[in-house]
Amino acid sequence: MQHTDIVLLFSDSEKYVGTAVKVCGWVRTSAEVKPMTFIQINDGTTSLKNLQLTIDQTRFDDEEYKLRIKPALPVGTAVYAEGELVASERNVVELLVSEIRVLGECPGDYPLQKKKTSMEFLRTIPHLRLRTNTFKAVFTVRARLSYAIHKYFNENGYKYVQAPIITNSDCEGAGEMFRVTTQPWATDYKTEEEYNSEDYFGCKAGLAVSCQLEGEMAALGGLGRIYTFGPSFRAEHSNTARHVAEFWHVEPEVCFVDLDEIIEIGEDFIKFIIRDILESCKEELAFFDRFVEKGLLDKLNHVVNSEFAKVDYTEAVEILQKSRQKFEYPVYWGADLQSEHERYLTEEVYKRPVFLKNYPKEIKAFYMKQNPDGKTVAATDLLVPGIGEIIGCSERETDLEKLQQAMRDRNMPIEEYTRYLDTRRFGSVQHSGFGLGLDRMVMYVTGMTNIRDVLQFPRTYEHIY
Amino acid sequence: MQHTDIVLLFSDSEKYVGTAVKVCGWVRTSAEVKPMTFIQINDGTTSLKNLQLTIDQTRFDDEEYKLRIKPALPVGTAVYAEGELVASERNVVELLVSEIRVLGECPGDYPLQKKKTSMEFLRTIPHLRLRTNTFKAVFTVRARLSYAIHKYFNENGYKYVQAPIITNSDCEGAGEMFRVTTQPWATDYKTEEEYNSEDYFGCKAGLAVSCQLEGEMAALGGLGRIYTFGPSFRAEHSNTARHVAEFWHVEPEVCFVDLDEIIEIGEDFIKFIIRDILESCKEELAFFDRFVEKGLLDKLNHVVNSEFAKVDYTEAVEILQKSRQKFEYPVYWGADLQSEHERYLTEEVYKRPVFLKNYPKEIKAFYMKQNPDGKTVAATDLLVPGIGEIIGCSERETDLEKLQQAMRDRNMPIEEYTRYLDTRRFGSVQHSGFGLGLDRMVMYVTGMTNIRDVLQFPRTYEHIY
Repeated sequence: MQHTDIVLLFSDSEKYVGTAVKVCGWVRTSAEVKPMTFIQINDGTTSLKNLQLTIDQTRFDDEEYKLRIKPALPVGTAVYAEGELVASERNVVELLVSEIRVLGECPGDYPLQKKKTSMEFLRTIPHLRLRTNTFKAVFTVRARLSYAIHKYFNENGYKYVQAPIITNSDCEGAGEMFRVTTQPWATDYKTEEEYNSEDYFGCKAGLAVSCQLEGEMAALGGLGRIYTFGPSFRAEHSNTARHVAEFWHVEPEVCFVDLDEIIEIGEDFIKFIIRDILESCKEELAFFDRFVEKGLLDKLNHVVNSEFAKVDYTEAVEILQKSRQKFEYPVYWGADLQSEHERYLTEEVYKRPVFLKNYPKEIKAFYMKQNPDGKTVAATDLLVPGIGEIIGCSERETDLEKLQQAMRDRNMPIEEYTRYLDTRRFGSVQHSGFGLGLDRMVMYVTGMTNIRDVLQFPRTYEHIY
Repeated sequence: MQHTDIVLLFSDSEKYVGTAVKVCGWVRTSAEVKPMTFIQINDGTTSLKNLQLTIDQTRFDDEEYKLRIKPALPVGTAVYAEGELVASERNVVELLVSEIRVLGECPGDYPLQKKKTSMEFLRTIPHLRLRTNTFKAVFTVRARLSYAIHKYFNENGYKYVQAPIITNSDCEGAGEMFRVTTQPWATDYKTEEEYNSEDYFGCKAGLAVSCQLEGEMAALGGLGRIYTFGPSFRAEHSNTARHVAEFWHVEPEVCFVDLDEIIEIGEDFIKFIIRDILESCKEELAFFDRFVEKGLLDKLNHVVNSEFAKVDYTEAVEILQKSRQKFEYPVYWGADLQSEHERYLTEEVYKRPVFLKNYPKEIKAFYMKQNPDGKTVAATDLLVPGIGEIIGCSERETDLEKLQQAMRDRNMPIEEYTRYLDTRRFGSVQHSGFGLGLDRMVMYVTGMTNIRDVLQFPRTYEHIY
């Protein structure tokens, strides 16, 4: 029999069958059927598959055994064990224990003793909920999805740009920014200018709501095709199951492509990352399919195998108006579609993801390319069943005059955007990009229905969890 | 001859030799040797290698040619061209142009017209400097290094955790935190408690200086081995070539490993990411070796091929004291070593990277494992030639009592760390981790000597670039 001196990672178990190994992990369940004790442990490197420690009590001196296993090993106890790793029935590996000891006890007030606990309760212990099957699986999928995003862009010639989080511009012009300051809470400056000039950066600073403008500056003339991937912030005063104040944001920016081409890239990207987790996270997705969202696997397989619908906003409004569906909010040309409309289109009409394109310019941002009709912009949202909008995408306006006019129409301070506008003055070219909220994507692929359950420590209005 | 309808990415050029292609890019240089015109363009997908457009003026009607190429195409002009891609001498590909047109002009006030510009000047135009060879190369290496970091951890069973940036705890206890608020600049609350309770989160909030505590909570009992990788913030009032207020921070946390094992992991990690860019960024590193830091390639090859030194702090202090070197700051047991000491050890004594370990507990953070000697902690810094400290690393204290005592010794508010301390109450195990500043690592591998030149838009004291 071979011996290994390293502590086995459970994710490598199958390679070590027939070997004497050392393992560490936390107790998930434990049962005694005299003279045997069976303990399931997990070391975190697998989310759902545990390792069974099989203890033949007769192999131990009675006193010694009691000393080590006390009456029993409660859930959450950390243990070290040695023994031979063998393949048992049903393709599971188990460890025939020759040595065991407790590394860290887990006392009776451990909040995860009970098998069934509610999501609401688990939100009150975010530092411990990663120890449950559901959250191990959610965060395993989230990690892999993030890696797939990096893989997609790196394998397709994009460069990762880490744009600053602290900013003095407001990309969306929505004014929902957090201020960043080192000033004491109470100040007696006479004017806001004085307050700002005395602050850490010598000017007013806030947290970025988007890195798009910095992404455009990096792509245009410099790196050609880039992506940013980091946290973005919105100080929205809403408490819904889809909104958080701090979320992770993926924003590619691609030169020399128009709206139809960026739509193709977006579709290719979404299919790539879903295909990746379908292959890499089989166990976790099967778990979600069984316990969280029935039909999840069918839904995801359908997405990677179907061509996404592409529909004009104008046509979508007509479809909604002609439908017999009762909506809470009215539908008319020029209206910003609500989640109920988006979900009706993707779930009932098209039954697959839909790129809705060419929105009225009044409801979209200043940087979007103005269409020749004078009424719409080359913008598109990707709507998916169960969620609604998941990607916001557009071709950008490249004409300096039109861009400045759009800013004036929105009362934006043009002088604060000199650098951004320089990209339109010096070698301006066609370019397009999109933004994906990672957290909503994690919800979509796991079936979790509250965004608070896909972030380790969610930050929401009135709440630092 | 084959035709392709897609716009060629320059990084794919070699695949398309002998094909009729479409290209887009920005003019880097342009020269006329009648009847030929030679224009070097770049599309950002390669940092240094340009594509040569070769125009035989006799192939164009005279009027038409002037219309398209006006007198000349200034640097920074965006162009579209079609033609046949051919291999020319010296393993370079060029395009025999059959069609060319200007996409975006670049007027005479373009700040990057001159070939030689100073780093100081380029810092005043951070939105345009990515268009220069040096910065294209810096940000190409930065992007690839970031991807290599993700690859290393994903290929070794670590899960990416996106810890929150907005926090209400101060990991290092250093008090150099930015406040995050939505309160108006001038307030007339009577107390700070009132101010905080009326704020967005209902409590005081700031920007994370480290994600280590969240990383420990994710690893212990949950995911086993994790890494965080995102921005961290320090409101330090210092203006040096090594300090920024916002930097990118990689922080792995690994259960069941001690100080010596995490040192091995750190060494393996550093060698992996350097080896990766030595292979993936040959052109860029050759450029830095030639123009930025002579001997850079030798330095990096030496690092991947040498075993890092491991030295006790106590021994290092003796070596420094016995040396005949004049230091600005005194050296004695208990002193926090300065950059001059660190560089002397790594550059003069060991001539390779050095892990300095077992520091006096008074100069290190509360969470580090206390050694049996009662005087030192199981902490180590990795020192590299030219930079000094690049990784801060430690085994963490797992004993609840000792950890709480270390917090009391530092006057820390223990009651604010209940969640963190829970990891020591419920199944506590040995674990270790380290922190690497990405920006300093980019400096190290490119030879750039000012941290402001490795961030797209650096944020420093009194400056939002």
